[in-house]
Amino acid sequence: MEQAIQRARILVEALPYIRDFRGKRVVVKYGGHAMADPELKKTVARQIILLQYVGIQVTVVHGGGPQINSVLKQMGIVPNFIEGKRITDAQTLDVVEMVLSGVVNKEIVNLITMEGGKAVGLSGKDAGLIRAEKLYLTRGDEDDRIDIGLVGEVSAVNTEIIDTVESKGFVAVIAPLGVGDDGATYNINADTAAAAIAGSLKAEKLILLTDEAGVLDKDGSLISSIDTGRIQALIDGGVVTGGMIPKLECCAAAIHQGVKKAHIIDGRVPYSILLELLTDSGIGTQVIKG
Amino acid sequence: MEQAIQRARILVEALPYIRDFRGKRVVVKYGGHAMADPELKKTVARQIILLQYVGIQVTVVHGGGPQINSVLKQMGIVPNFIEGKRITDAQTLDVVEMVLSGVVNKEIVNLITMEGGKAVGLSGKDAGLIRAEKLYLTRGDEDDRIDIGLVGEVSAVNTEIIDTVESKGFVAVIAPLGVGDDGATYNINADTAAAAIAGSLKAEKLILLTDEAGVLDKDGSLISSIDTGRIQALIDGGVVTGGMIPKLECCAAAIHQGVKKAHIIDGRVPYSILLELLTDSGIGTQVIKG
Amino acid sequence: MEQAIQRARILVEALPYIRDFRGKRVVVKYGGHAMADPELKKTVARQIILLQYVGIQVTVVHGGGPQINSVLKQMGIVPNFIEGKRITDAQTLDVVEMVLSGVVNKEIVNLITMEGGKAVGLSGKDAGLIRAEKLYLTRGDEDDRIDIGLVGEVSAVNTEIIDTVESKGFVAVIAPLGVGDDGATYNINADTAAAAIAGSLKAEKLILLTDEAGVLDKDGSLISSIDTGRIQALIDGGVVTGGMIPKLECCAAAIHQGVKKAHIIDGRVPYSILLELLTDSGIGTQVIKG
Amino acid sequence: MEQAIQRARILVEALPYIRDFRGKRVVVKYGGHAMADPELKKTVARQIILLQYVGIQVTVVHGGGPQINSVLKQMGIVPNFIEGKRITDAQTLDVVEMVLSGVVNKEIVNLITMEGGKAVGLSGKDAGLIRAEKLYLTRGDEDDRIDIGLVGEVSAVNTEIIDTVESKGFVAVIAPLGVGDDGATYNINADTAAAAIAGSLKAEKLILLTDEAGVLDKDGSLISSIDTGRIQALIDGGVVTGGMIPKLECCAAAIHQGVKKAHIIDGRVPYSILLELLTDSGIGTQVIKG
Amino acid sequence: MEQAIQRARILVEALPYIRDFRGKRVVVKYGGHAMADPELKKTVARQIILLQYVGIQVTVVHGGGPQINSVLKQMGIVPNFIEGKRITDAQTLDVVEMVLSGVVNKEIVNLITMEGGKAVGLSGKDAGLIRAEKLYLTRGDEDDRIDIGLVGEVSAVNTEIIDTVESKGFVAVIAPLGVGDDGATYNINADTAAAAIAGSLKAEKLILLTDEAGVLDKDGSLISSIDTGRIQALIDGGVVTGGMIPKLECCAAAIHQGVKKAHIIDGRVPYSILLELLTDSGIGTQVIKG
Amino acid sequence: MEQAIQRARILVEALPYIRDFRGKRVVVKYGGHAMADPELKKTVARQIILLQYVGIQVTVVHGGGPQINSVLKQMGIVPNFIEGKRITDAQTLDVVEMVLSGVVNKEIVNLITMEGGKAVGLSGKDAGLIRAEKLYLTRGDEDDRIDIGLVGEVSAVNTEIIDTVESKGFVAVIAPLGVGDDGATYNINADTAAAAIAGSLKAEKLILLTDEAGVLDKDGSLISSIDTGRIQALIDGGVVTGGMIPKLECCAAAIHQGVKKAHIIDGRVPYSILLELLTDSGIGTQVIKG
Repeated sequence: MEQAIQRARILVEALPYIRDFRGKRVVVKYGGHAMADPELKKTVARQIILLQYVGIQVTVVHGGGPQINSVLKQMGIVPNFIEGKRITDAQTLDVVEMVLSGVVNKEIVNLITMEGGKAVGLSGKDAGLIRAEKLYLTRGDEDDRIDIGLVGEVSAVNTEIIDTVESKGFVAVIAPLGVGDDGATYNINADTAAAAIAGSLKAEKLILLTDEAGVLDKDGSLISSIDTGRIQALIDGGVVTGGMIPKLECCAAAIHQGVKKAHIIDGRVPYSILLELLTDSGIGTQVIKG
Repeated sequence: MEQAIQRARILVEALPYIRDFRGKRVVVKYGGHAMADPELKKTVARQIILLQYVGIQVTVVHGGGPQINSVLKQMGIVPNFIEGKRITDAQTLDVVEMVLSGVVNKEIVNLITMEGGKAVGLSGKDAGLIRAEKLYLTRGDEDDRIDIGLVGEVSAVNTEIIDTVESKGFVAVIAPLGVGDDGATYNINADTAAAAIAGSLKAEKLILLTDEAGVLDKDGSLISSIDTGRIQALIDGGVVTGGMIPKLECCAAAIHQGVKKAHIIDGRVPYSILLELLTDSGIGTQVIKG
Repeated sequence: MEQAIQRARILVEALPYIRDFRGKRVVVKYGGHAMADPELKKTVARQIILLQYVGIQVTVVHGGGPQINSVLKQMGIVPNFIEGKRITDAQTLDVVEMVLSGVVNKEIVNLITMEGGKAVGLSGKDAGLIRAEKLYLTRGDEDDRIDIGLVGEVSAVNTEIIDTVESKGFVAVIAPLGVGDDGATYNINADTAAAAIAGSLKAEKLILLTDEAGVLDKDGSLISSIDTGRIQALIDGGVVTGGMIPKLECCAAAIHQGVKKAHIIDGRVPYSILLELLTDSGIGTQVIKG
Repeated sequence: MEQAIQRARILVEALPYIRDFRGKRVVVKYGGHAMADPELKKTVARQIILLQYVGIQVTVVHGGGPQINSVLKQMGIVPNFIEGKRITDAQTLDVVEMVLSGVVNKEIVNLITMEGGKAVGLSGKDAGLIRAEKLYLTRGDEDDRIDIGLVGEVSAVNTEIIDTVESKGFVAVIAPLGVGDDGATYNINADTAAAAIAGSLKAEKLILLTDEAGVLDKDGSLISSIDTGRIQALIDGGVVTGGMIPKLECCAAAIHQGVKKAHIIDGRVPYSILLELLTDSGIGTQVIKG
Repeated sequence: MEQAIQRARILVEALPYIRDFRGKRVVVKYGGHAMADPELKKTVARQIILLQYVGIQVTVVHGGGPQINSVLKQMGIVPNFIEGKRITDAQTLDVVEMVLSGVVNKEIVNLITMEGGKAVGLSGKDAGLIRAEKLYLTRGDEDDRIDIGLVGEVSAVNTEIIDTVESKGFVAVIAPLGVGDDGATYNINADTAAAAIAGSLKAEKLILLTDEAGVLDKDGSLISSIDTGRIQALIDGGVVTGGMIPKLECCAAAIHQGVKKAHIIDGRVPYSILLELLTDSGIGTQVIKG
Repeated sequence: MEQAIQRARILVEALPYIRDFRGKRVVVKYGGHAMADPELKKTVARQIILLQYVGIQVTVVHGGGPQINSVLKQMGIVPNFIEGKRITDAQTLDVVEMVLSGVVNKEIVNLITMEGGKAVGLSGKDAGLIRAEKLYLTRGDEDDRIDIGLVGEVSAVNTEIIDTVESKGFVAVIAPLGVGDDGATYNINADTAAAAIAGSLKAEKLILLTDEAGVLDKDGSLISSIDTGRIQALIDGGVVTGGMIPKLECCAAAIHQGVKKAHIIDGRVPYSILLELLTDSGIGTQVIKG
């Protein structure tokens, strides 16, 4: 009995946090270890359902790199990256789309369904959700453009279908593909897509699930909060490097479009989304306007 | 961190219970020690808000005997009871109404408001909510009626105002008074009023908060479940006695009108409402059709 | 027959007045003799229902001084006033709230119900309706504050519950109590509460039912119209004195918040509300912007 | 002042009658003297607006015999009647339609508009409102059919357009024309059309404005109430004769289709509609099921 | 089969045009030969229904000069015109209204109904649709006014009734009459009424069906497009003369009020409305802002 | 011009067919040659959009056999069939799902989008759309079951997500996968899925696009209509053989669930859907109740 009372007390202690976010929208970029470990997968699904139940609307944007690589390998195609971006020829794009929209997306939907929630899988190609244009990497000056194939950047987001399904209590689970004006399909970085969608939804929060504790200082200690105005200095100073740079830029872009806060959190920690939303301390690194 | 994870896990483990009751209605008769102890009072308010947040609609019907007695005493009026029912002359009824509608009702509303919820206090006189007629106690045969004054039994419930305020997210907090066809006010037993309202709302559950562990066997052990068909035998056998008899009869009446289950639980236990709704074992005694 | 035709003609002659106010809101401060005399009480209820029927939305805010004094007396408490304001200690406040919310409020609701209307009684403590803060009387300079106890002034009005019940055809009947940020209850002057509510509702009219013919000139003749800009001069010139000063200030405050006209009328005259709304001449004193 | 109070009292005394009919529908057949006399015309318009204001939905079906005859005369066409029914050749039908839909209908609409109401004029040809088929008079046995030209009887009523305009607060004013399956236009008796529309609307009342006091007994005294089962006996007994026979048959037909009561009242009496609806005694003859 | 495929292909080829106008409003002034020829009449009705089916909302405003003249002749009244405007005495106005509202209007409604559409006939007198004031012709200076009787110009349009019926899928068919502030009826030029209604509806297009190919150049060749800024020059240069001048002025007025394009097209050509809306080339003369 | 008029005439001649199907639902099984030929693909998309535009709600269920086989081949997996059903091991199912949900589905959505329509791609795994259970082939008696792997039959259809997206004007495009009670994914025959969905939607029509002219008689002539009661005889008589048998059984099943008519038509013919819906003769073989 004492234990049961203790459990009930914990439910009730979540009240002030729930109150703060009820009726608001949170976009979660789902990827990394949290998408590979069977226990974590279930945990993510349950957290999403719980948030939906208490009136916090979650939209999920997912990646799927390892699954893509596995299929590419099965088909004898060697993946190729420049600066962390997948060089995407037509055959690779086919695999990317097949795996993201056809396998990973539906698996996440199925997870949520089996845990008792309601979810709909969408690709950025559905309902004109993500308009894209070809992305070129640039080096030094603008003229030195590198063609990395069918990789796109988001040119517009039409949230009508998200609003439509969410108004009926479904969670939208989105594969990050986009369509060009000419109908061509583009592979889009999942963080980028999540940030653009969060911006268009005027979400309260963008949460990036990563395989790191957050942004770390040079001495390896966690930086718990970063003002958008400080990001460039952190990069220039070599504090932030590698794959964390585009993640921080995504956070900044989302905030620039009206998202209140962005969070880079550790998806390997169980219940990390709830830890961020429903505890005082939060986890990981938050990025705020400033 | 471990502790925070543990707390999040507990939140998530409530999911299956929440799912079972989402979109359903629960009527809570609030009274006894849980209405006297300041800590328990806050706890009740928080439980109600939490249930509202997860989509379980709570309607509260409250008593207020001790507060009534205290004011009667201040005014030099001596309370009088027959068979547990207050003999209610005009002056006493004035005090009953003043205290229930004017003090206790608004205090509960205020508690919920201060804890961050939305509540509206109503009396059975508002919006034609409770129609009543004079109640006579009978002894032996029908002709031996005892007049106990302005005490009523419920003749009809009009739930329009409950539906109206609940559709906007307010919890209805109801003082158990009724109006006769001639406009006279009647004092109504709170358990009775709660049962009648639960029946009219076709509630999923009626929960009576009492100052006992539930219905106890002759050896003092808790009877965890009672079929409505067995109640009379329990009374006849002397297992159920005193104030527990009308409580069980209220439960049976509610179930007869379509309520799924009724519960007599221990309001002195913290979080008892959540324990009943959101744990496997439940607490107290449940009454079910049978 | 002739008489019946004459009656029908009178109904039809009300058309132009009804047209002017259809779809608009009127806040009536109900108090004084009109709340004491049994015939006048019924008449007020019927007028409110008629206005509701022809599409004019009435909100009632009521006082209850004599009833409060009578209960205080029963309980052996001596009422105390400074400058017409009740000095309100905790025990007095309990009585004020009990009587206003528990007795007077529900009696008005019951009257309207028995006459065939639909009404809901509310206190300013319901649904966060009236937020208040402690009121100090000041004399001379700001530093000379007099503490008169648990008397409040309105700091905010949240009309959501009024809109909710009125959208379903109920008349809201409101007891003038408020809640501080710390959850404390405050006694609020009914005129002040009515003015604040009228202002928040952007009402067409605020009507104060008084026990006088209106604002009288020094020679005792009725002043039928006063511009808000002239009020101070009337006070300074000693034309307006005593309890009429705060009433005029309430009218001015309401108009300042967007109410079109405020009226100080004689509640002792039968049908005085209809006389004001549905005749050319009107009665009492109107206060208009100017 | 006394007079003004008296007027307000009369308004308030209408309350119980208004309550009985609020939210219900009344179909008025408008014709005869009440459509010729300028004062009566205004009075009818005002009564309709008043009823609309107090929540009683009026639908008007009108005749126009005198105006039709006047135009026929201007065009040198001699009107022809058999058993009170106009023999309607193509040229006559053109005039009937022109006058009813084009002049009389719009004049009534304009009257209501100028008195401050909202009205829309419709013909039975609009929106598939009245489907008709050719009417033959029969004598003795079925085979002896008399062709009276383009006169129709109602085969179906589609009330969608009435519901549409009334939901926006417009009064529907209807000219009694119908359309055959082949698109042909038919002249329909206004009483018949009003009865059919009242039946389709499941109206509370059908009110026929006539130029008589009601149905009179052989000694000229008014019969205030007739059961539908008694009508044939009254006809057979020669009590009811001439044009009153089809009027009573219309009343019976309407009641047969679900109208609660039908009334044959004296349109020459000012305010006769209100006298029927808003007084105890009513006027004219009521027809009830029995 | 080949032919059927060809037909289906043509349906599909209309897609881009439909897409451009879906959800938009088109006002058609219907008159001239297209209202006289039985085949053209059916064709107009079918075009309107088709447009309604594909989501393009059509409002029809009609004339009726020939029908009016025919009835005037039957009644021995000689029509009289000044500068193309009918001198309208009271007797003539009666005939104008009778014929437009009573005959022509309902005939168009009936045509649409018989072809399977849904239509409601309205006059500018219904529902306060067209407010008018007396029109004077002026010559030279302002003081030289010519009184042409009960002819009006539009002073205000209230589109509530159009919105009401169109929201339920009805086509509004409107006879061009108006009402003065004093309730007087005015005869209004149908082109003028159509332009005013198109302007108030913020229609995408105003289409005037005429008996000419459009606006012709001096050498008789069609001018396919005219900027509003060029109209005066065309008149001054004698290119545009006679009845085409007020038509162009109507187009300019509509565009000035927010209509996107106005079209003067040849109603004698079958399917001319569809030719304008659903082909690349269009027909007749378009008037555009410039 | 003549040609343009001819085109407009053809549009208008579609009216009666459109009228018959407006507001109704049609489920199209899309597959075969019509999904391979680039011109036919565009044509199918355009037909769907046109039907949507004229108020006929289309739901698309698609196959994808050739695309699946092509990817299987790329991955070195040899497809295996028994009685026309794909033997589906886990690896094959992954490819089936990837190709159907990830590639084919999104390609159809993109086609409709690029042609100007609005579409959303769904899999039977989204939103609990298709519940499935393992399908066993049976031979002779029930005990001789053949396990063909992860192939399912439909046990339940939840159309909520279809209703949701279609209410906002989107076409639902559905990949035929299903989920078992244990969360396992099943490959479902597209004809079967289309029939089950049509049945649940109470569709007006189920249209199967095939690569044959329809059901052919033994002499190769088209059977234009088949009663459901005659199907078994046609199979027994050897008239219907091979893959046409399950197609006819799907049609019968759909009709059994309330679909009005089912059609087996030639998807190789351009505009075959419109030919079926919008011409008198229709094409292919219709299956009707009988």
